Amino acid sequence: MTADHQQADAAAGTNQAARGVRRRTLFKTAGAAGVTAALTAGGFGAGRLSAAQDIDEKLSLIGSDIVDFYGARQAGVGTSPQAHACFIGLNLKPDTDAKGLTRMLQLLTDDAARLSTGTPPLADPEPELALRPARLTVTFGFGRKVMDLLNPQLTPEWLKPLPKYGIDKLQKRYTGGDLLLQICADDPLTVAHARRMLLKDSRYYTTMAWIQHGFRNARGSYPEKTTMRNLFGQVDGSANPDRGSENFDYLVYGEGELGHIPAGMDAEKGGHLKPWFPNATSLVLRRIEMNLDTWDELDRPAREMSVGRTLDTGAPITGGGEFDEPDFEKINPHGFPAIPDISHMRRSRSDNPDEQIFRRAYNYEDVPDAVWEGEADEDTAVSNAGLLFASYQADVEKQYMPIQQRLADLDHLNIWTTPIGSAVFVIPPGADEGEYVGQKLVEHT
Amino acid sequence: MTADHQQADAAAGTNQAARGVRRRTLFKTAGAAGVTAALTAGGFGAGRLSAAQDIDEKLSLIGSDIVDFYGARQAGVGTSPQAHACFIGLNLKPDTDAKGLTRMLQLLTDDAARLSTGTPPLADPEPELALRPARLTVTFGFGRKVMDLLNPQLTPEWLKPLPKYGIDKLQKRYTGGDLLLQICADDPLTVAHARRMLLKDSRYYTTMAWIQHGFRNARGSYPEKTTMRNLFGQVDGSANPDRGSENFDYLVYGEGELGHIPAGMDAEKGGHLKPWFPNATSLVLRRIEMNLDTWDELDRPAREMSVGRTLDTGAPITGGGEFDEPDFEKINPHGFPAIPDISHMRRSRSDNPDEQIFRRAYNYEDVPDAVWEGEADEDTAVSNAGLLFASYQADVEKQYMPIQQRLADLDHLNIWTTPIGSAVFVIPPGADEGEYVGQKLVEHT
Ligand code: HEM
Ligand code: HEM
Repeated sequence: MTADHQQADAAAGTNQAARGVRRRTLFKTAGAAGVTAALTAGGFGAGRLSAAQDIDEKLSLIGSDIVDFYGARQAGVGTSPQAHACFIGLNLKPDTDAKGLTRMLQLLTDDAARLSTGTPPLADPEPELALRPARLTVTFGFGRKVMDLLNPQLTPEWLKPLPKYGIDKLQKRYTGGDLLLQICADDPLTVAHARRMLLKDSRYYTTMAWIQHGFRNARGSYPEKTTMRNLFGQVDGSANPDRGSENFDYLVYGEGELGHIPAGMDAEKGGHLKPWFPNATSLVLRRIEMNLDTWDELDRPAREMSVGRTLDTGAPITGGGEFDEPDFEKINPHGFPAIPDISHMRRSRSDNPDEQIFRRAYNYEDVPDAVWEGEADEDTAVSNAGLLFASYQADVEKQYMPIQQRLADLDHLNIWTTPIGSAVFVIPPGADEGEYVGQKLVEHT
Repeated sequence: MTADHQQADAAAGTNQAARGVRRRTLFKTAGAAGVTAALTAGGFGAGRLSAAQDIDEKLSLIGSDIVDFYGARQAGVGTSPQAHACFIGLNLKPDTDAKGLTRMLQLLTDDAARLSTGTPPLADPEPELALRPARLTVTFGFGRKVMDLLNPQLTPEWLKPLPKYGIDKLQKRYTGGDLLLQICADDPLTVAHARRMLLKDSRYYTTMAWIQHGFRNARGSYPEKTTMRNLFGQVDGSANPDRGSENFDYLVYGEGELGHIPAGMDAEKGGHLKPWFPNATSLVLRRIEMNLDTWDELDRPAREMSVGRTLDTGAPITGGGEFDEPDFEKINPHGFPAIPDISHMRRSRSDNPDEQIFRRAYNYEDVPDAVWEGEADEDTAVSNAGLLFASYQADVEKQYMPIQQRLADLDHLNIWTTPIGSAVFVIPPGADEGEYVGQKLVEHT
């Protein structure tokens, strides 16, 4: 286990760009008529709940937790993942020009900033639905068209669709988009309301390319720093750089230098990452279908070999705990590598420490297509599940693409997984109070 | 406010059929190899979380809360509503006979009982996903075909599709079904795993008719007894009979007698409800689309008039608090009834106190159809939202149908709402340990 994992989120404060999570028991910023009354009637100050009050008080931080919206970096990347996520891809309408885009970004920034403190945005028709931020974060991502309107000079070369990989079966309804809204919160109603307010204010300027919902365990089901599980039952995210660590800053924002070098990597090969813009990063969002039915046919040891980690604790199958390094040299009694060469872990790790990414994935489970179309019969699959694989990195070409190419060439997991959606965005720096997200790019000369 | 509302759930223990909610901080029943290890690594006993431990401990009850599965009545009706719900309608395959049906009900009962205590079902390929019950309840409902195989003599006359109402625009993909699985929990991953296990064990005997997901606020966002809000922003459920009250037992299970008589009702007209079977009830599930766009065009007073309650506290517009009775006689300064005759509250309340139902609705928000089909353009609506309107009552014909008929004839809300799915099930009594759900019906002579 690395010392990094001992750190609480708050310790990330060593970095000037890190954002704090504040806790409040009462809302002081309610901004619409009637909202104060609602707080008194349905809120924590209510007198009618004496019997259940003790439990309610303990749980109250789920709704009232706030993640700062303003800051050098946007929230929602280094934020400890919330239970629910909604990713929305929007396309600019043909007649949306730089002025319209700016106007929209101003509106959306203002909406997001308010919503994240539990304050209804201006002209919110349902202000009561805004009162529990539940760690709401709204993260904006830009595609090439948006960058062209804001400041094309800054556009990184890699801001374009990924190359077509042999494993891809991409569908239009999950692919592309000019503008990303990533909405995360611990309360699904908070996400639904934020989604609606943001879509209303972007409607005049955009059309919807796609919308995807994902989930993890509820806030409080597991201790905060527990690594998520995906629907294959795997512990998913163990080898991630720790939020708030040197490696996080370097790999996600291109800032500083690598600290800890994972096993099998050569420090000499890395060190070439730079920020494309200070406090900016990128998102590759892949929708990856996971075939639970064929996966479940495998026995447990075979499933563990396919990744190289155990299913119970997520530890490498060569021993130790979840955060101990795998022993790639170890040979099993039959004379083969204990961690197979085609295992997902072996294939996704190269000897170049720059080739690392920060994963913040969500599970998805949708209605099987046949049911949706009213055509379910006895041969219909009972699942339509997978991962909204969200990967953040300073440089898509240097970090994401080599890993993805290797996995597309060979990865045992490919038997049960299929990429069906793909999108790439830059994540611009955060906004300071009074600014809109993207403004720092426009003002840069 | 009625005294009923002061009662905590535990107080429902006056009724022998009421079920308790137990709290555990550690799981003692882990039933699969490796599960204990997982609990130690990722669970509450872990040592690596000292910094965040205090908060984690307070929140831990969200994952570890258990609702008893076994009991005279099935869980999931009188249970304080969990944050997430999945309703699944299954159709029996043509060759599923009484023996096959019984076998399936045995399997599903066993799965549900285990899952609800955080114990992986037999042959669970992902046992770690079963460890946080988060108040999981699995409620079974039967259609006519299932009743025909179990004990047709008991089938209530009203167990059939509702009459076609003028407001209905029913779609096949949300309508009908022989067997209902209602899965509710505070953790979306718990629901996903339970859904998968139950579908696997019903697959041989059934096909899927439809599947619908719904949500409310996260556990802990509001105190437990707070009335939900729907996506119109309305407080929704205020006039519901209180769980654990005399009215609840009478209206939902046909047991005992009416206690509190709501304003405008005549005690003499009621008193005719009987259980169709002891501790059994029924579910009418209507999927009702809510047009958020046209709703939002109304000003706030007009929206409040459409129901007869305020949007901030949910109190009647004639004054008082949420649980005070409306004054239907009150005339406003212009000489009209203060609560309009066409308001939803006025239309849904008759003078017959038997014509009451118990609502336990969930919000839904799905991907707009045009996006789903890859055809979104600038005229595409940005919402596909509404209510999974779940109504429980002792007698569908005496309670649900007269209300629904009146609302279909005239209800101001009809302007913005459209029923697009409909299903009716009996909810059989619960199972005692060692029994399967439905067994009590078979053994009855
Ligand atoms: C549905 C598809 C996928 C599943 C189920 C999956 C699952 C996993 C699991 C269980 C692990 C081991 C634990 C951990 O460190 O997180 C892992 C590691 C990893 N995965 Fe994936 N993964 C998927 C797709 C991808 C894709 C598309 C990429 C990148 C293009 C990727 C990159 C990685 C990396 C870099 C690691 C860490 C390897 C290491 O250095 O130890 N994965 N994945
Ligand atoms: C999307 C559709 C609907 C919406 C948005 C809605 C909303 C509401 C609201 C806001 C209230 C007032 C607060 C409360 O007591 O819960 C209410 C009450 C009520 N609704 Fe609905 N409702 C809908 C459909 C239905 C349907 C289909 C039925 C039955 C067929 C129904 C039956 C009732 C009843 C019985 C009451 C209580 C009236 C009283 O006695 O005060 N509602 N509804």
